[in-house]
Amino acid sequence: MVQQERAVRTRRAILEAAAAVFDERGYEAATVSEVLERAEVTKGALYFHFSSKADLARGVLDGAVTTDGVRPHRLKLQELVDVLLLLAYRLPREPMLSAALRMSVDIEARRLFGTRWPDWTELLAGLLAEARERGEVHAHVDATETARILVCAWTGASVVCEGLPDDYDLTSEVAKLFQLVLPAIAAPLVLAKLEVSVDRAATLYADMPMARLEASGISH
Amino acid sequence: MVQQERAVRTRRAILEAAAAVFDERGYEAATVSEVLERAEVTKGALYFHFSSKADLARGVLDGAVTTDGVRPHRLKLQELVDVLLLLAYRLPREPMLSAALRMSVDIEARRLFGTRWPDWTELLAGLLAEARERGEVHAHVDATETARILVCAWTGASVVCEGLPDDYDLTSEVAKLFQLVLPAIAAPLVLAKLEVSVDRAATLYADMPMARLEASGISH
Repeated sequence: MVQQERAVRTRRAILEAAAAVFDERGYEAATVSEVLERAEVTKGALYFHFSSKADLARGVLDGAVTTDGVRPHRLKLQELVDVLLLLAYRLPREPMLSAALRMSVDIEARRLFGTRWPDWTELLAGLLAEARERGEVHAHVDATETARILVCAWTGASVVCEGLPDDYDLTSEVAKLFQLVLPAIAAPLVLAKLEVSVDRAATLYADMPMARLEASGISH
Repeated sequence: MVQQERAVRTRRAILEAAAAVFDERGYEAATVSEVLERAEVTKGALYFHFSSKADLARGVLDGAVTTDGVRPHRLKLQELVDVLLLLAYRLPREPMLSAALRMSVDIEARRLFGTRWPDWTELLAGLLAEARERGEVHAHVDATETARILVCAWTGASVVCEGLPDDYDLTSEVAKLFQLVLPAIAAPLVLAKLEVSVDRAATLYADMPMARLEASGISH
């Protein structure tokens, strides 16, 4: 392995460890020592990549804005569905995503680092705008407003599912959410062609390159 | 004022004070002394009504499950819309509601007290079931599932609006949410009759009995 590649892997391993610690203990309570212990790297390695606990937090938040695993599709609206379905599937499986959610919802952490909700809104609004240009969505659909509502609803599903006494499968809840909102967004012929299911998310996830899964520590 | 009425008012004033303190500082950091100071009651009065900080938290959570201000309507679906619109309008105006949201989202507080999301889901599912019996909603609508998605989306809107850099008006976001989901829920003739607007929420709020507003400390 060339040196640069090793550095990328080390950085990723540290971020994954930080995410796991933030996810379990919250940003406030977490310490850099815990991250060091979990990452099994030297203090020097950690401080080479990240200057502080705050820097680790920013790295985790940035790492959680990801569309990895979403494939180009001739329907832009399917890509949008895939982004949120796959994210729901990955959330309980990847500490990077759940730590970022926990920090966005935590008032103190949010004061320090803000949230990545504007980035998500922008990303979804871009897909909706493309979909509208192609005639996939109703002409009156406001891309930014609709994107923001989708970010709200997705975030709410992830927060509420976690806080309900019974176990709810987030991917299945997000699929139901799409079944409610898509008729108001998609042109009828497009609506009939969209695939919105837990299976779709599971397939996309299974097809993600193992290299990425290994690098993020999921296969360990 | 008869003694019992005074006791009810004192209890309410203590709960409102506790809500304000929990809302500002979080459950963990809040102290009973701060609640005492804010409520301007004696320690004896507080402990007559509530045995502990945890008891105050449970009181706040219970107090936040409220449909006050929602009026009977010949369309049950309008009542459902009114519940969530009015709640959105009240949330930034009533510490009892925002404190309950903050505690439901806070992982530690949630571990101690659970959330009231199941109560909300049940309440909305009841309205949806009645609406279905009256033919107001599509026959295939699953009342409980749809209610749960609405609770998710509403909660997400309230959490995300608070965390976005620009000021978003929650009531207006919830109205937009309904515009997205109602076509998939309401029968077409009913859909055309539903009133879903910020003005509707403001009118319902303005019509709430002043007695209740005074008792909850809003007019002070």
